Amino acid sequence: MKKINVYDMASRITEHFSPKIIAEVDDHYVKIAKIKGNDIPWHNHEHEDELFYILKGKLTMEIEGQIPFQMGEGDLFVMPKEVHHRVSSVEECSIMLIERTSTKHTGKLTTNITKSIDQQMKPDYPNK
Amino acid sequence: MKKINVYDMASRITEHFSPKIIAEVDDHYVKIAKIKGNDIPWHNHEHEDELFYILKGKLTMEIEGQIPFQMGEGDLFVMPKEVHHRVSSVEECSIMLIERTSTKHTGKLTTNITKSIDQQMKPDYPNK
Repeated sequence: MKKINVYDMASRITEHFSPKIIAEVDDHYVKIAKIKGNDIPWHNHEHEDELFYILKGKLTMEIEGQIPFQMGEGDLFVMPKEVHHRVSSVEECSIMLIERTSTKHTGKLTTNITKSIDQQMKPDYPNK
Repeated sequence: MKKINVYDMASRITEHFSPKIIAEVDDHYVKIAKIKGNDIPWHNHEHEDELFYILKGKLTMEIEGQIPFQMGEGDLFVMPKEVHHRVSSVEECSIMLIERTSTKHTGKLTTNITKSIDQQMKPDYPNK
């Protein structure tokens, strides 16, 4: 692979709630996504942790039974497996995600925003 | 865990070539390190990929048999397992690393900069 600038990658993404795979580390994907609105349903990942890293903007993180909190640029949070959560953003927010290749981005739920791994592959996937 | 700001974490690190573990995702650690100089020896990781992400500054990446290249803020590169490499920096550079918990940061080599996993745990490790 070549080096990738994650800010450049984010600037190419036009669709919200549509993660794009930009790299692989062992059995984990690195993804970039843009969030705007609250279309993501409450969900969890039974067997996989999920790393959230904020590139730009503000992300609201809601975790079942906890007080919601906001994340800004340079903030990192690892959602433990099994924990119900939901993320949303009033203004557009660019994020980097790191999660196992087996992770489904809306957990067991399938909604109108759910994307398959094929749909998450960029046509110019830089890691191949 | 609580959210972590990686720039805050980097600002607390004073020692060069001494990665600090700030989070875990499944069987991978997220680490922050500062690089200045060329103390890291050529090495590889036999079974593990290694993700480099530049927070601040410039990192020179050397890969066996390839032309060296420079990485800047927001650049991401995954070093494939087995590949010999070396990183250095003229000015101080802050980086984030993601690698399997089994990865030794100087590969099979032990030099004066080599740190054990215990030494890579921050006393205020925020993920516990």
